[in-house]
This record gives sequence, structure tokens and C-alpha cells, in this order.
Amino acid sequence: MKAEIIAVGTELLLGQIVNTNARYLSVELAALGIDVYFQTVVGDNQVRLQQAIKIAEERADLIIFSGGIGPTQDDLTKEALAASLGRELHIDRQAMDNIDRFFKDREQPMTENNRRQALAIDGGTPLPNETGLAVGNAISHEDKHYIVLPGPPKELMPMFENQAKPWIMSHVLTAETPLYSKMLKFAGIGESALETKLLDLIESQSDLTIAPYAKESEVTIRLSTKAALESEALDKLDAMEKVIEERLSDYLYANRDVPIEQIIVEMMTEMNLTVSAAESCTGGLLMQGITSIPGSATVFLGGIVCYSNEMKKKLLNVPTHLLEGEEAPGAVSKETAAVLAEQVRIITDTDFGLSITGVAGPAFSERKPVGLVYIGISERNGATATYELNLKGNRETIRVRSAKAILYRLWLRLKELQAQKS
Amino acid sequence: MKAEIIAVGTELLLGQIVNTNARYLSVELAALGIDVYFQTVVGDNQVRLQQAIKIAEERADLIIFSGGIGPTQDDLTKEALAASLGRELHIDRQAMDNIDRFFKDREQPMTENNRRQALAIDGGTPLPNETGLAVGNAISHEDKHYIVLPGPPKELMPMFENQAKPWIMSHVLTAETPLYSKMLKFAGIGESALETKLLDLIESQSDLTIAPYAKESEVTIRLSTKAALESEALDKLDAMEKVIEERLSDYLYANRDVPIEQIIVEMMTEMNLTVSAAESCTGGLLMQGITSIPGSATVFLGGIVCYSNEMKKKLLNVPTHLLEGEEAPGAVSKETAAVLAEQVRIITDTDFGLSITGVAGPAFSERKPVGLVYIGISERNGATATYELNLKGNRETIRVRSAKAILYRLWLRLKELQAQKS
Repeated sequence: MKAEIIAVGTELLLGQIVNTNARYLSVELAALGIDVYFQTVVGDNQVRLQQAIKIAEERADLIIFSGGIGPTQDDLTKEALAASLGRELHIDRQAMDNIDRFFKDREQPMTENNRRQALAIDGGTPLPNETGLAVGNAISHEDKHYIVLPGPPKELMPMFENQAKPWIMSHVLTAETPLYSKMLKFAGIGESALETKLLDLIESQSDLTIAPYAKESEVTIRLSTKAALESEALDKLDAMEKVIEERLSDYLYANRDVPIEQIIVEMMTEMNLTVSAAESCTGGLLMQGITSIPGSATVFLGGIVCYSNEMKKKLLNVPTHLLEGEEAPGAVSKETAAVLAEQVRIITDTDFGLSITGVAGPAFSERKPVGLVYIGISERNGATATYELNLKGNRETIRVRSAKAILYRLWLRLKELQAQKS
Repeated sequence: MKAEIIAVGTELLLGQIVNTNARYLSVELAALGIDVYFQTVVGDNQVRLQQAIKIAEERADLIIFSGGIGPTQDDLTKEALAASLGRELHIDRQAMDNIDRFFKDREQPMTENNRRQALAIDGGTPLPNETGLAVGNAISHEDKHYIVLPGPPKELMPMFENQAKPWIMSHVLTAETPLYSKMLKFAGIGESALETKLLDLIESQSDLTIAPYAKESEVTIRLSTKAALESEALDKLDAMEKVIEERLSDYLYANRDVPIEQIIVEMMTEMNLTVSAAESCTGGLLMQGITSIPGSATVFLGGIVCYSNEMKKKLLNVPTHLLEGEEAPGAVSKETAAVLAEQVRIITDTDFGLSITGVAGPAFSERKPVGLVYIGISERNGATATYELNLKGNRETIRVRSAKAILYRLWLRLKELQAQKS
């Protein structure tokens, strides 16, 4: 079963809004085991809309429209579809009553153009609109299926969930097998290195799909498979997860779609551990990431941004001899990273102290190159580890990667502690 | 001039990501006076991608691709386009050097699949990637123009702005009247309120376009106009800017596309002022925003994230009687916001101290509602101002809006100081 989503609206072509409907519908269709092969966006123009319908009919069995069914002259989706199918339009009585009642309740006159929102294609099924006035349509014609939904997400989503989905299940998916999937999240490894390690699995995939993709210093793999029984699908997904985990246990941090910060907060909550941070070049980026997780308050107590050397001395007791003088290692050094991590841990009385100090650019500093960053992890009753990073990219990329790098190191250490405990 | 945007990626068809690239490119093309009639999304499949190219060639003069140029087996955009045009691919030397250097700097072995990122179509113009490894391509073939861009927005945007746009202007828009534009940036005002204040101008626009759009708590207006002579265009743009500035001087913070943090860093540098911050619910978000600006080091010295009450007492000397007890105003109060701002200013010896304390949610705290936030601005030899915010939205939105709110207040105050000086 192949589907195409056609979003109708000049506002999309002008970039005034983002096509979130296509995303929502794609997720919903994937969950039904329906493959979306194309998404199209077309403006409020009947000729071009009919062209788009013709193309979609050649490559999809199910065509879903969003938008273009409001009251104004440029809302043309139903007209274009009716013309394409060689059918007529009529006013759907129930939808019209609904519109009349809406204006009567508000004691406002109903302008004539509102009647357009009650239009339905002859021979189709009207889809009631729970949160708006424009009625949707579902229709099967020859061997194709068409569903017309409103543009505003708050109307489209309940109409899809409560009206269109049941219609698809009873009219379209009579003989299909459902699709199940699972997300695996990785840190500390790039997309291409990860793919290389899984290449044999990816190349030999048949009834289970392995799809890697990267975003913001994290790599995700989606495993998906079709099966008649949910238990059968889950067994297959779990088995593949196990194979991947054996190869990549030092990188696989979650089997659901969450950032590494979330996993760290969960692990530390469970182990009753606390953390603080001292940030120089990242200026708060690490801390804001951790505190973006709901429930981080019991784990993350506070921290210090020590952007200038003066602040490193004043707020974090970094000795002057580390920072100043010809022979001094300087602010960007493993020595300073170690003191920052230790001091912030002591000052805040936490179990872990994290530190980041480096050259984010665009200019170098201390005659050190842009991208040279030191991170430190200090542990109560334990050692202080430091790592040197040599990062590429612009200022923002270097900052983000520095924060992700220390989160990865912290996660590795927490995993070790967890293993020791159990 | 008609354009079509083809976004390539199965992750879009699965609904894993939203097609923000189509939106960005649509806005940029509209600003160049180029009409986008269709946007298409197609998966990582060479046959379907070539079908999409064929269809686009029938209805557009300029075809822009986003995505599918990474290192992995399913990145096929360049292969599909080369096959459609009947051209060969080669390795672009400069891009390959860049990739080699990247892995060498990291002392990591370059896996063979990374060579794919240096592929370029014979006879085209390689578009260097400033923030990633995959090189872009621009090519004219028969009477059509093709541009291949990477999928990640942080690679696509600079490549479009710095490489593709100049190429379009010099290779595609040769016979068109050039378009000139200017960005006006606003803070402290919403998009609809701003539009209302400019409605007469927007409705009567003819040869000068006024296009408002909103993103991340900032509103931007793009003024654009076509003219044969640059001086003529600039005169028109300046005149309109003046009209808008007269109406909205308390909100218009820049006439170029920069965040408010940039303007604040520039104003404080000029006035030789310094600033620090104490953040509770925003957890470092404010400071990371300021320090994301190159050159912020002379202005922003440091600050403290005091997420727990213990840290508020310990690191920022907030008296216990403010925080604890039945009658205490609590951590989320104007009293605490004032102490935090004053103390961080005193501790860091800066001219301004900023503070944010509030309930970002999802759970309420201190029996106070989600979205209640207090911000404080303390000034050396001056008063400490506090403001109560009642924000709507999820945790992330509330945190971002809190940070933007205090930046707006600080900007207003700096403007006042600037006016007094001159």
C-alpha cells in the first residue's frame, strides 16, 4: 500500500508556515504500515492542483490532501478533486447544519462563502470536523482512495484520528500487515563510522529495516519490521537490538528517542548521584541542556560560568600560576580543566564536577588553535579525568560538540558504576 | 522564474523530521523574486528520485535539492541527478582535501564511504560546505538550473546564503531586475501585535514588500523592492525603515539579521560595560545565548546557575528567610530575583547583574503556576528592577521566552543610557 500526501496552500510555498501536517500524517501512516513515497506541496491554484493529483494517481494508491477546504475563494481542493474524478459536489446537510448553528450561537450573520465549507463529493463519505467548520471527505474511485482533510493542525489531527483512520482501516487496509519500529540512540560515534560497523547487517536486511540518520551530534537508528502479530515483531526488533548492542555497547545509550541528557538524569536519579558544572567556552550550554530535562532538579544542583580568567580565579580558585606567565599552561589546558572540575564539585558539594575550557573561535586565544577544548570530570572520593578534544566547525558547532563530548564521557562512567553495583 | 524544491530523505517520509528546509528555501527564493510552485519530498531511492526530477523539469526552471549527499549508501541525490542529466561524477579535490584533513586532525581513520561526500557532477560548480563535509553542487544544463544542498539545516543555510544565492544571482537571474532587501528585527512584541501596528502599510504595499515572520520569540520584517539601481532601492528601503522605526522604536532593535544578544554585546562593548547572570529555571540558557556571540568575552565575564535553593544560598547569598518558611516569598519571587541580580553583580564585580527565577514546568513548584517567572536587572550605583512574567507554553518555550524577556529589558535600558550619553 503506497500513499502520497498533498498539502495545499500558497502559504506553504511562500515559507510562511512549515508543513507539520505532512510530518504528522507520515508518522500516522507509517504506524499503519502504509508507505509514504512522496509528499507534495502545491499552491491554491486549480490547474496545478489537478496536475498534482494526476501525478499522485500514477504513483500511489491512497492520496491524502491537507488544506484548501476553508470558506474563501482560493480554497479549491474539493473542486479540483471532484473535477479530476469527474464527479459533482453537493452540500452535506449535517455539515451545513453545523455551520448554521455556529453562526446562530454567536448571533452573527453567516456570510455566503461559508457554505463552501459544507461541500462534499458525490458518492464519498463526509468526515465530520470536531474542532472547525469545514467538512472532510473520503472517497474510493476506481482502484484509488482519496481523503480530504482541513489545513489547521488542530482540525486535521482529530479528523484524521477519529474519522479518517477508521475509514482507512475498514476501506483501504483490508489485507495489510502492520509495521512496528524501535529507535536506537548513539553518542560518541559518527554516522559513517556507525554505518561501517553495521554495514553487513544493513546490506543483508530483508524483512527488518535498519535506517541510520544523524542530527546534532547524535546518531539514531530506526529498526522497523512488518508482522501480523505484535509479539512476533517485537521479538524480531529485540533480537536485532541485541546484535547491535553487542557490537556497539559503548555508544548505544538508549532504545527510545531521547537525548543523552535524559538518560544521564535518569541514571543519576536512580543511583542517587548529583552533578555540577564549570563552563568556560560553552558559557552555560552544557548546563542548559541538562536542565532542559524535566526532573533534572534532584540531580543537577548548580554551576558556574567562568568565561574570563578573572572569574576562573575568583569563583573557582584556579591558581594564578596556572593562568598567567610564559610557562603557565593557560586557561585552555588539561591542568585548568582539572581544577575547574574539582573546584566546582567541592564548592557545590556534588558527586560529580564537570568542566569545559577551550577555544570556540572565531579567533584563537592563548596562541592555541580554534577547536582545542579540554574537558574534565571530577568524582567525589575518586580521580579527576581530563580529555583533549580537537574539534572542527564554527563557534556554535564546537560549543555543541564540547558539551556532547562531556555528556558522553559522563554516561560511560555512569554505566561503569552501574555495572559495578549490580 | 519558477522553482521547485525537492527534499530528499526517507526520514521526512517517515515523519521523523519536519521539512524546515523547504520553508527556509521558499522564504529565500520569494525574497529573490522567484516563484516556488511545488515542493516535493522523496525518499532515498534512486528510481523515485529520478522520477521526481523528471516531473520537476516539466514545471520549473530552477530545481533545488536538499539532502541525500552524506556518506552513506542511501545518500543518492548526486548520483540520481547525474544520471538524469547524462553526466558523470568525479571527486572534487578541494572537498576531498577537506575531508582528509578532518579525519587527520581527529587522528581517526577515514572510512571509505566518506569519499562520497566529495562527489561533484562533471561540468558543474562545487559549492563548499563551511559547516560540514558534503560538498554542494550547482549546474546549468540545457535551459534548466540545478542546485544540490546538504540536508542538515546548519549546513544548508550557510551554503545557500554564501554559495548558492550568489550563483543564482549571477547564473540564473541575469535578465531579471535585481531585488534588494533589508531585515528589521524586533523584540518585546508579538507578530500579530506588530502586524496590527503596520497593517495600513502592509495593505497598501505595491513596489515595496513588507513581509513579517516570527521565529523563536523574535519577529523579523523583511522589506524588499526591485530596482535597476541599487541607490534607488536603498533610498526606498531606508524611507520605509524610517516610517516603521517612528512607530515601533521601542521594539526595533536592529536593521540587519542578528539576534538581540549581538546588539547587546555591541552596545556594551561601545559603552565599556560588563554583565553577569544568575540563572535558576533557565539553567544557563541566557548565558549560553550571550556567549554564543563572538567577542562577548569583553562584556560577559561569568555567572552562576543556582538551580537548587541550597545553591541560591551558598553561591549567591540569598537569605534563608526569603526561601524557607510559611511566610517566605520563596525562590520564585521578585524579592529573590532582586537578591540574585544584585549578588551576582557584586560577586563578579560587573556593571549589570541579571537574574531569572521561575517555574518552567512541567510540574508547578512552591504552589506557583507553571509559567510564572521573575527577572531582575541590577545596576552598579543604580537601582535593581524586577519584572513579573506570566508565560504560556511548554518547558522549553517558557525558558526561551524568559531569557528573551530579560535581554529585551536590558536592551531598553542600554538604549536609555546611550541616549543620555549623546
